[in-house]
Amino acid sequence: MKVAILGGTGDIGAGLALRWAKDTDHEIRIGSREAEKADEAVSSYRTQLAASGYDGNLSGGDNLNMTEGADIVLLAAPPEYVTEMTRTIGGALADDAILVSPAVKLRRDGDGFHAVPPASGSLTAEVAAAAPAGISVVGAFHSLAAGRLSNLDAPLGIDTAVVGDDPATRAVIIDLANEIDGLRGVDAGPLSHAAIVESLAPLCINVARYNEGLHHLGVRFA
Amino acid sequence: MKVAILGGTGDIGAGLALRWAKDTDHEIRIGSREAEKADEAVSSYRTQLAASGYDGNLSGGDNLNMTEGADIVLLAAPPEYVTEMTRTIGGALADDAILVSPAVKLRRDGDGFHAVPPASGSLTAEVAAAAPAGISVVGAFHSLAAGRLSNLDAPLGIDTAVVGDDPATRAVIIDLANEIDGLRGVDAGPLSHAAIVESLAPLCINVARYNEGLHHLGVRFA
Repeated sequence: MKVAILGGTGDIGAGLALRWAKDTDHEIRIGSREAEKADEAVSSYRTQLAASGYDGNLSGGDNLNMTEGADIVLLAAPPEYVTEMTRTIGGALADDAILVSPAVKLRRDGDGFHAVPPASGSLTAEVAAAAPAGISVVGAFHSLAAGRLSNLDAPLGIDTAVVGDDPATRAVIIDLANEIDGLRGVDAGPLSHAAIVESLAPLCINVARYNEGLHHLGVRFA
Repeated sequence: MKVAILGGTGDIGAGLALRWAKDTDHEIRIGSREAEKADEAVSSYRTQLAASGYDGNLSGGDNLNMTEGADIVLLAAPPEYVTEMTRTIGGALADDAILVSPAVKLRRDGDGFHAVPPASGSLTAEVAAAAPAGISVVGAFHSLAAGRLSNLDAPLGIDTAVVGDDPATRAVIIDLANEIDGLRGVDAGPLSHAAIVESLAPLCINVARYNEGLHHLGVRFA
């Protein structure tokens, strides 16, 4: 499968790219606004993989080029750019591409982090509204600590909750999650549940902050 | 410690009463609107504990009697009664009692369960607003499957996220959670995080519904 990670030079993009490169044979395409930045990231991911004894099927380019022909397109950009990015790359999406939104808009105050959902209820729903007609949108990979993914020696043992209105599309992304060692995709149902799934991201950060000895947390349903 | 479970004849009240009776020496006081109903519940909990080879320090009475002198008062009533119950028993609370809110208001549609927080943002915040001045309110025990707690042979291995504005009070409830074998209390910070903590309850129900082989789920931060 061809998996494009747009904004794949950022923290969560890097973490997922490294894990999929390590654990799968998928073609992992790192997208950035500038192709050169993507190429540099690919080069650094290859170095990191090699240092741990792994290789991976990685390539880089600008976001539009990486989107063309990709089976799965992950919007790993900062939350404020995700909707605009959806519109920018919309025309380049293959007809049967799946668009995946892992971003969460957060605000921070003295109590910790809070999710700030848009008026539509969730960022995933906002991406769905901005996506071309017929493109399936899924929310996933929200509550994964990027630094833990990027540390290839760190065991995971965590879940990612997957939401979206099309069950078959959710199943594809659940399988893609399951291919990462120690990660489990769980089906959280339709888009109407996206807000709570997105909120797991600040919850994990807050729980790590308030509990000594807990760091880089994820969630496991048990 | 004296732990009053008001509405302690219901599902979640029963589950927590059985577990604390089994795993601690605390005086577990089962409250109900009718003392007789509470006494019947105590009798049935004792029978169930004895059948598994345990005993416990259980007593029963009406909600007001059980509240008087209790160190911790748990509002294990259906969500629509919790605020009214807080006002009803408010005058009977000891000055240093801790009030604990485990309830979540849910609505169900074709997609599954959704939390319906009150205007104040969370049921825990609503209880805090209705409680007498100076009484510490904590939200906890929201996302525990009652049937799993009540099955004393079922292993837990799950967490409960504890929210409230007073860190020392949260610590007391975290300790009380930790005393149940296989349950871990985690500190989720101030009341402003109560909505997301309450939302874990419908999320767990939905994930169990959408994933074959997953039942009576809780959450573990890992």
